[in-house]
Amino acid sequence: MPPSAPAPGQPTGVFVCFEGGEGAGKSTQSRLLREALEAQGREVVLTFEPGDTPVGAQLRRIVLSPETGDLSPRTEALIYAADKAEHVHALVQPALARGAVVVTDRYVDSTLAYQGAGRAVTDADLAEVERVARWATQDLRPHLTVVLDLDPAAGLARFEGRDRIEAEGPQFHERVRAAFLRMAAADPERYLVLDARAPVDEIAAAVTDRLAPLLAPQA
Amino acid sequence: MPPSAPAPGQPTGVFVCFEGGEGAGKSTQSRLLREALEAQGREVVLTFEPGDTPVGAQLRRIVLSPETGDLSPRTEALIYAADKAEHVHALVQPALARGAVVVTDRYVDSTLAYQGAGRAVTDADLAEVERVARWATQDLRPHLTVVLDLDPAAGLARFEGRDRIEAEGPQFHERVRAAFLRMAAADPERYLVLDARAPVDEIAAAVTDRLAPLLAPQA
Repeated sequence: MPPSAPAPGQPTGVFVCFEGGEGAGKSTQSRLLREALEAQGREVVLTFEPGDTPVGAQLRRIVLSPETGDLSPRTEALIYAADKAEHVHALVQPALARGAVVVTDRYVDSTLAYQGAGRAVTDADLAEVERVARWATQDLRPHLTVVLDLDPAAGLARFEGRDRIEAEGPQFHERVRAAFLRMAAADPERYLVLDARAPVDEIAAAVTDRLAPLLAPQA
Repeated sequence: MPPSAPAPGQPTGVFVCFEGGEGAGKSTQSRLLREALEAQGREVVLTFEPGDTPVGAQLRRIVLSPETGDLSPRTEALIYAADKAEHVHALVQPALARGAVVVTDRYVDSTLAYQGAGRAVTDADLAEVERVARWATQDLRPHLTVVLDLDPAAGLARFEGRDRIEAEGPQFHERVRAAFLRMAAADPERYLVLDARAPVDEIAAAVTDRLAPLLAPQA
């Protein structure tokens, strides 16, 4: 169910998020979900964070460039939040308003998992990072978040060129993984955790099965 | 007095901010203050917001470029907050820690005045903008903020090339001016309001007079 009911007769979109570490298959599954839903006649918008708006792309370059060097944790959190604000305002909300299914590759949970896994962020800071991210996104939450769970060593092995985030050590990525699993466990109605090592088609089928009730024909 | 007392024997810097609309003489007065304080043997660091760090310069370009088009108000506020976070972390705090006088051309008050003057920001949003800016700056506040007060029409007439902010209408800049005056009136111990049309040397003398007690010889 959407978190707030649309006015009678208004179209209502469905907001789906894929989360997980590097190399877990988020973009593959996003594409497969689009194919499945388009075959059902739904409009599907694929998007991602950070960087899927013109301003967001510039912000993403700043954060991920190895030339940027060490940013303070608050600077990094605020740049990501700015990207989110533009993403939701310019892309996600308009698509949902016209009744589309929006499928995003990463969202607020990624911010919380990656910032929380950093060494320099205290619990108090993490609470404020979440508050800022919720404000940035106008507290818009996915109807369903699919966590593609994978041993970080397996996921990172798929990448050769590494950016600042991917170059973090194995313990960092273990903390990221644990954070996704904790968030999913705390709100099982809005999360689906799948083993990312399962066959691609099997994962895709589990996602479409779980989404079916949310995608019932609209009035 | 600094807001928190330094440990005995520790150097303690002094943090001074110039605020006001475009063309009020903030950079001229910053330079004159530096000259006066350096003549007294103090280390002085001149800085500004937005953009006085490598990352901040990139963020400033994004916000001020006419090519950026309309940003959502939250995006803009978060980009400015990211600039502040880096400014305080990488530049202001280290200088204060070694006992320097830091003189900044604009700070949190500019964010509140300009964001608050925007059409699309509600009071609730403005409160959140302030909260985010305080978090970004680790709640570091100037010992003295000097507001150079000027009729916006007089200030803007000095500029030919206008960026996105300068191109706002006269009512916008009137609201900015009123916001600075309100903040100063609410906390007279930390603010000095001066008529920006007064002779340059007279303004400079008023600033150094007001700062003198804060700059007493250190233990």
